[in-house]
Amino acid sequence: MAKIIYTIGREFGSGGRDVGQKLAEKLNIPFYDKELLTRAAAESGLCEEIFHMQDEKPTSSFLYSLVTDTYSFTNYHGNTYMDMPLSQKVFLAQFDTIKQIAAEGSCVIVGRCADYALSEEPNCINAFIYADKNYRIKRVAHDLGISESKAKDMINRTDKERASYYNFYTNKKWGDSRSYDLALNSEKLGIDGCVDMLIRFSDINHQ
Amino acid sequence: MAKIIYTIGREFGSGGRDVGQKLAEKLNIPFYDKELLTRAAAESGLCEEIFHMQDEKPTSSFLYSLVTDTYSFTNYHGNTYMDMPLSQKVFLAQFDTIKQIAAEGSCVIVGRCADYALSEEPNCINAFIYADKNYRIKRVAHDLGISESKAKDMINRTDKERASYYNFYTNKKWGDSRSYDLALNSEKLGIDGCVDMLIRFSDINHQ
Repeated sequence: MAKIIYTIGREFGSGGRDVGQKLAEKLNIPFYDKELLTRAAAESGLCEEIFHMQDEKPTSSFLYSLVTDTYSFTNYHGNTYMDMPLSQKVFLAQFDTIKQIAAEGSCVIVGRCADYALSEEPNCINAFIYADKNYRIKRVAHDLGISESKAKDMINRTDKERASYYNFYTNKKWGDSRSYDLALNSEKLGIDGCVDMLIRFSDINHQ
Repeated sequence: MAKIIYTIGREFGSGGRDVGQKLAEKLNIPFYDKELLTRAAAESGLCEEIFHMQDEKPTSSFLYSLVTDTYSFTNYHGNTYMDMPLSQKVFLAQFDTIKQIAAEGSCVIVGRCADYALSEEPNCINAFIYADKNYRIKRVAHDLGISESKAKDMINRTDKERASYYNFYTNKKWGDSRSYDLALNSEKLGIDGCVDMLIRFSDINHQ
């Protein structure tokens, strides 16, 4: 199989992570979602908690103001980051790890502006998975065992953070179809249907 | 074959019309692009030139100010439109024709907010076709035999008009993936590849 890096942006509760995981299983290739943070932390020398704390969060958050400093470090790949906010150092360390992961071979990477980090990579397929909000509310409430009202709040907050993070660090717009190679409604297709469409896309793209 | 209405929004020069035409040919179902205007004109009793003049144009254009009046008419479907700008009468006449066309059976409709007109129709698949601007510039310049500079101007103007028209008449955003069931990059897939993906989508959706 030719090397292909699948990057998956996703609305919260759309099942984008599940799509990525099933795709990786089906193709027997590595899968990175939160796993990316662990690896980026290990390679950067920064503690993993910082990566989780800042994960896909906008830089203007309250947390950001607490941790803004001039902390510097040299990461695993030999890049030194000095005199910049910690949030940007964390972003750049992830950026390096994403490039390293992509250099190693086919894989699936969920979120974290991987499409932008790999914009020079010719073997990338960048997807966005989304669904109607009512469908996502029911899904999140069921999966997490919370009320629909709480699920709605969680969806609104998380999507806002993801959009803000993506729009700040890339020159593209989160959720706009033009930021991706394909965008799929998971309510209409189901998880397996999205996986099927992604494999079909790569088959056509590599004919 | 189950009844399916495919609606196709598209960036200018992306080949969205070609995708729709090939899809209709392949499935042997009717295809409507400019054809919709002819039929809407015939059914409304308004002259066809008005439909072409106002086709997917924003209501705030200079043309709009010239034709704003209190012209009223009763169309083929028995609906009477009074005391509203002509642009809105034209939109509503198209709206009725789109619903009528969809009621007749499977078909492909390009542009003209057909996805919104058919939001209550359960057998709809709403797609958006787009591509990188440089790719579209070369394609339009080649197909129309004009300079790349002129092609770029035409693309910018037409996309702006289409976005403005769509955003004015619907509660959705033109080009945002969440406005459609799927969005496809025609540069990555080619025309036939897009057709293939649309058929695949409907196969999965109707399993």
